[in-house]
Amino acid sequence: MDKSLISAFGRRVRLGMVGGGIGSIIGETHIIALRADGFCDLVAGALSSRPEVAHRSAAQELIDPERSYETYEAMAEQEAARPDRIDAVIIATPPQHHWPAAKLFLERGIDVICEKPMTRDLAEAQAMLQLVRSTGRLFCLTHCYTGYPMARQARAMIRAGALGAVRMIDMTFAPGDHGTSLEPEDPADRHWRFQAASMGATSILGEVNSHAYQMATYVTGLEAEQVSANLSMFAPRREVYDNAYLTMRYPGNVMGRMWASYVAAGNDQGFSFRIYGETGHISWNEEDPEYLILKPMAGPAVVYARGYEATAQAARTSLRYRAGFPEGYGLAFANLYVDFAQAIMARALGRPFAQYLSELPTVEDGVRGMKMIEAATLSHANGGAWTDCGTRL
Amino acid sequence: MDKSLISAFGRRVRLGMVGGGIGSIIGETHIIALRADGFCDLVAGALSSRPEVAHRSAAQELIDPERSYETYEAMAEQEAARPDRIDAVIIATPPQHHWPAAKLFLERGIDVICEKPMTRDLAEAQAMLQLVRSTGRLFCLTHCYTGYPMARQARAMIRAGALGAVRMIDMTFAPGDHGTSLEPEDPADRHWRFQAASMGATSILGEVNSHAYQMATYVTGLEAEQVSANLSMFAPRREVYDNAYLTMRYPGNVMGRMWASYVAAGNDQGFSFRIYGETGHISWNEEDPEYLILKPMAGPAVVYARGYEATAQAARTSLRYRAGFPEGYGLAFANLYVDFAQAIMARALGRPFAQYLSELPTVEDGVRGMKMIEAATLSHANGGAWTDCGTRL
Amino acid sequence: MDKSLISAFGRRVRLGMVGGGIGSIIGETHIIALRADGFCDLVAGALSSRPEVAHRSAAQELIDPERSYETYEAMAEQEAARPDRIDAVIIATPPQHHWPAAKLFLERGIDVICEKPMTRDLAEAQAMLQLVRSTGRLFCLTHCYTGYPMARQARAMIRAGALGAVRMIDMTFAPGDHGTSLEPEDPADRHWRFQAASMGATSILGEVNSHAYQMATYVTGLEAEQVSANLSMFAPRREVYDNAYLTMRYPGNVMGRMWASYVAAGNDQGFSFRIYGETGHISWNEEDPEYLILKPMAGPAVVYARGYEATAQAARTSLRYRAGFPEGYGLAFANLYVDFAQAIMARALGRPFAQYLSELPTVEDGVRGMKMIEAATLSHANGGAWTDCGTRL
Amino acid sequence: MDKSLISAFGRRVRLGMVGGGIGSIIGETHIIALRADGFCDLVAGALSSRPEVAHRSAAQELIDPERSYETYEAMAEQEAARPDRIDAVIIATPPQHHWPAAKLFLERGIDVICEKPMTRDLAEAQAMLQLVRSTGRLFCLTHCYTGYPMARQARAMIRAGALGAVRMIDMTFAPGDHGTSLEPEDPADRHWRFQAASMGATSILGEVNSHAYQMATYVTGLEAEQVSANLSMFAPRREVYDNAYLTMRYPGNVMGRMWASYVAAGNDQGFSFRIYGETGHISWNEEDPEYLILKPMAGPAVVYARGYEATAQAARTSLRYRAGFPEGYGLAFANLYVDFAQAIMARALGRPFAQYLSELPTVEDGVRGMKMIEAATLSHANGGAWTDCGTRL
Repeated sequence: MDKSLISAFGRRVRLGMVGGGIGSIIGETHIIALRADGFCDLVAGALSSRPEVAHRSAAQELIDPERSYETYEAMAEQEAARPDRIDAVIIATPPQHHWPAAKLFLERGIDVICEKPMTRDLAEAQAMLQLVRSTGRLFCLTHCYTGYPMARQARAMIRAGALGAVRMIDMTFAPGDHGTSLEPEDPADRHWRFQAASMGATSILGEVNSHAYQMATYVTGLEAEQVSANLSMFAPRREVYDNAYLTMRYPGNVMGRMWASYVAAGNDQGFSFRIYGETGHISWNEEDPEYLILKPMAGPAVVYARGYEATAQAARTSLRYRAGFPEGYGLAFANLYVDFAQAIMARALGRPFAQYLSELPTVEDGVRGMKMIEAATLSHANGGAWTDCGTRL
Repeated sequence: MDKSLISAFGRRVRLGMVGGGIGSIIGETHIIALRADGFCDLVAGALSSRPEVAHRSAAQELIDPERSYETYEAMAEQEAARPDRIDAVIIATPPQHHWPAAKLFLERGIDVICEKPMTRDLAEAQAMLQLVRSTGRLFCLTHCYTGYPMARQARAMIRAGALGAVRMIDMTFAPGDHGTSLEPEDPADRHWRFQAASMGATSILGEVNSHAYQMATYVTGLEAEQVSANLSMFAPRREVYDNAYLTMRYPGNVMGRMWASYVAAGNDQGFSFRIYGETGHISWNEEDPEYLILKPMAGPAVVYARGYEATAQAARTSLRYRAGFPEGYGLAFANLYVDFAQAIMARALGRPFAQYLSELPTVEDGVRGMKMIEAATLSHANGGAWTDCGTRL
Repeated sequence: MDKSLISAFGRRVRLGMVGGGIGSIIGETHIIALRADGFCDLVAGALSSRPEVAHRSAAQELIDPERSYETYEAMAEQEAARPDRIDAVIIATPPQHHWPAAKLFLERGIDVICEKPMTRDLAEAQAMLQLVRSTGRLFCLTHCYTGYPMARQARAMIRAGALGAVRMIDMTFAPGDHGTSLEPEDPADRHWRFQAASMGATSILGEVNSHAYQMATYVTGLEAEQVSANLSMFAPRREVYDNAYLTMRYPGNVMGRMWASYVAAGNDQGFSFRIYGETGHISWNEEDPEYLILKPMAGPAVVYARGYEATAQAARTSLRYRAGFPEGYGLAFANLYVDFAQAIMARALGRPFAQYLSELPTVEDGVRGMKMIEAATLSHANGGAWTDCGTRL
Repeated sequence: MDKSLISAFGRRVRLGMVGGGIGSIIGETHIIALRADGFCDLVAGALSSRPEVAHRSAAQELIDPERSYETYEAMAEQEAARPDRIDAVIIATPPQHHWPAAKLFLERGIDVICEKPMTRDLAEAQAMLQLVRSTGRLFCLTHCYTGYPMARQARAMIRAGALGAVRMIDMTFAPGDHGTSLEPEDPADRHWRFQAASMGATSILGEVNSHAYQMATYVTGLEAEQVSANLSMFAPRREVYDNAYLTMRYPGNVMGRMWASYVAAGNDQGFSFRIYGETGHISWNEEDPEYLILKPMAGPAVVYARGYEATAQAARTSLRYRAGFPEGYGLAFANLYVDFAQAIMARALGRPFAQYLSELPTVEDGVRGMKMIEAATLSHANGGAWTDCGTRL
């Protein structure tokens, strides 16, 4: 990262956030990530749909009270009118609010950092795509795991041919802690993720599998053509599917499997991948994210770590400490903010900025994710039949 | 193990082998395993279909030349007539010979140790079942990985409820070395495993997946009801499928996945499992077989090893060294011979012997395996449709 | 952590830093750590002994130019006179400047966060101890690894008797990357750490071993009585010792070993410990810091992670994400700032604050570290003779 | 291994054993190892100093009753007179009997496989050396861990310069199970290893540290010049030292550390090494023996396994299965018997046989081990003073 951009820009990037207040794990994660490297400040927010929580959350982030809004509509309108208005907004609400909120900010010339799944359905996703393209705003979908240097290393190596042609893609995203493996007796105690009324029965595909699906494309460059899906409900009293087995067909006789679950009891985070090619495979596990293992056929495994001389450019520029000092999830997430903020700063300074966006998940990723969700939902309804999820946007 | 049975029996168990001569990896493995603990001797054999190889193989095992046979038919007939005849025969040929060979020995009152897949098809498997039952001979199907103390530990723990009710069964058997990942230019150089003419296009199901399928039932006690299968051919010039993705339905809303492959390039052995239950999961990897990991929900992983005080009876009686001295594959395989030989000795001594058979794979396992193969072949032909593999024998 | 303290306090803790500007790895680490959680701001600095670097460093941290000082003397004087003066100063210079700098700030009522080794020699360390005690200021010595939740977990478990009485303490701090394993041809290219003139030949004891020595006491509560040291110079052209083997005697027949090195070629960070007691041991490795392994005698290993229900209070309050999301080095270091800032805030608010200091390394740790350095230096000069490093302050 | 030697030789190598009967862990280990690969038979023995145990042990090994002896003197005399006499004898008694027993067999032209430590003291060791040289018999000291393919791989790589010049040798042999970590109340229940009267107070040096010491020389080719030793007694009621910290000086400014312990509670086997050179290090752990890790400076770790194409000749010829099938301790130990038996067979057949001995520990290793024991005992008595253990034989 290039901190001289900060002095040249003369200030930090000003961010606002919709959702993400006290009690929101993802909100706290965004706040740590945006702040860690000094490129961004959080200066405005509509941090909760409950005004008291919104204002209390803003107070502990030392947000000016007049920039603590009770609705994102108010926030969009008033921020747009300020001379010191926010440069970008973070959308960290449940997914049904993503599109309506993002729309208001994009239309006012404010860049957007949006949580996944990108929208409630494919139609909204396509509208988002059109609006991002027509406004020319920057848009980052926080498939946050792409911020890990070793995920970027995997991408660079696979695309450089370290495995020969890719043959098989094996993705797992299967957490299994108390909060996801059991369903409380009282429906009111259930997390919004597990409410069929607002989220739909197949919400696991967007909440969980969309990360795996995007990562598969991120590291291999391949976009799935067809999906076969089998969904299950395991936890008693559950209203939504809590387990998904997917098989994917990619172009060129490449096959894939994905496992998304809320009930992988005993797993902690449970996000990992293995990509097999003609001559070897690569594996990575988000619970041990500092290492990427390349295993060639009939030869010794090679264990890459952040910061080695042999690592790729994208991995080497996404770090702070030398190998042996783990950077973890918080600073991986922060890499997205560093990239995004550097792009905003460079653009404002009239410098080239595309290179800062090269690793960031895009609105196109969001559309592809929604296509997967609709195709997998349909496949499951048809007993696992192969269903087209072709990603022509 | 109880070596006092050897002195009571007054000799080692006399074994013969069909197939398994020089150049046969599995034959060499059987020979090490049967000999390591002193319970068995190899005293006869029809070790190859090529007489020269058969006799040369016999010579280096110091088998009496007159007990080195050129056909298994001759061996069955002549051994049956000897006063010092073999107690049991090992069938280590390609699978199409298993049933005809086993039949000859069973009919002559000789116990059988048979390689997997048990037979060429389900009809043969059912005939084998009937003959084993009607003759009352001992029969062991060498799903050798059940000899690992930690596989036995997994079985004991799961059946004792360590995970609560089982929910998901995830099996992988995906080697990927040179010998399986590439196909030689000259068809004559291809391993018999990869010849469609003799083995059928779906031979991967018997050669590889049958191990995973049997292990799933071994550790959980559950027998699959339905299978959905997708098979692929990746390696150029290949005549048979070299990759299989299976999804299984077990009774009681239990789901399973199996991945069998010859083209998991970079994998060495690639056999592992994870069993998830209501309250945690258990995982084991044959490449690191001394350890079994129990991971409860939201709590620390517990790493069991062979020889700890907390391990189950079946694990504690299947070992030679204390924890920290790995026993590996050879001695795990040898556990099958120790169990089988102890049963033969105890039976001959008029003692109870059923306890020695409790961990050994059975002829019923073989029938179940053939049902899976036929159902998965049919499912693949029908685009992955759910297909019954119910295991009523 | 309790972010409501921030809103109650009404602002962040204002920090200044001496040293740590552009090109200083430790400076960058402090800046990330202090900023990540929103408890602190960096508002002043004398960030380099080279004015140009100092001001450029300040600019990219958006420090007000009038608070970018060219000397720490000017900084101490002018900051003390401001109404918005810094609450605390970070001393991140080479060690010979620690005491003179810290003295100026302590005398002006400014709390101190000081890098290790605490001072140039024992006399300075004892003066520091006296001044901290007489001024009543808060003082934190950044033995940063104590910020790891699993180091705190180790301390809690050992002190709660998880191992029975401690018997052996085994510490390793042995990095070995290019920067430390080789010595450049040109003396001018050598890091200040490797310059005997300014640092003394045994500087490895303070730069490296002091971390291990403090951690041993931190987790066990034991303070060493005697040391036997053997130092070596391996790298050609080196002026200072680059390897130290120490053996320690602790009270109650407890023995310890420490290995500090710059030439453990191939190691990355190389900081780990194993503590053995009567009934088991505990091990931790800073390169895999999310896990703490308890291995009881003849029983399964138990793998603790940050965020499990079974973890200790000190570990549970030092985290941001649930288990499975690694927090790494940056956020472990940040735990020191969270603790220190919470103490400052609570103190200012008239609330109890001692609890926030309970895990932080102290000025007494600094004195003990200097005693070890002097004793080990003397021991080495005497051929490894046992030398008193008793820690009566 | 070359099993065609067996057919050429026409029989197995005939072995006798002194000690090692029922209840002897090491005896059982030898028996599995000698038998596994078919090169050897156990045909005679004086398996216990208690006749009843000796004969019962012989019976379960199916040793001819007339070759089950009550003393090794009787065995040496009577075996020497037989036409089918043993080719070699295994000495598996406590160390005070090694020399007197070995002497009788060597003098009668019988080769010797001897447990470690080689003798009771240095004088005996030197006598053994002279007798082996004067008789020209084959002699193997069972430092069994040299049988691991990955230990042999380490040796080949280090000697080929994979680390540049060696700088530091770090050896640990620290088991800690119940049997070694606690001392029973009743002195009669104590293992002979822990009886000062017969073994001397520093027996840990021979019983445990001799393995580490020999392995250091085995893999690096370096012989220690000086030792500094600190011994401790931790377990209550113990008569002998149960922990040893050693520091070693090797030629050429190479340093070493060794830790030998009986009280590393929670460790299982606890035997591992790390060898550091100018450009990287190599590490191996006997509890995970299939892998050898080479870690170059600032580059990715490379994980060698038995059976890869890149492994050294010595590793590739010491195995049975391809990578991914662990061979473990039993078959590593068996490699010593394969090597030794092949040498005996080749010698008898008039073929070159030196190549079979190249990896086997020698009588010279035994002498060096005794010098270390005497030097370390003396060093400890002198407060850890550097003491010569120069290995001029």
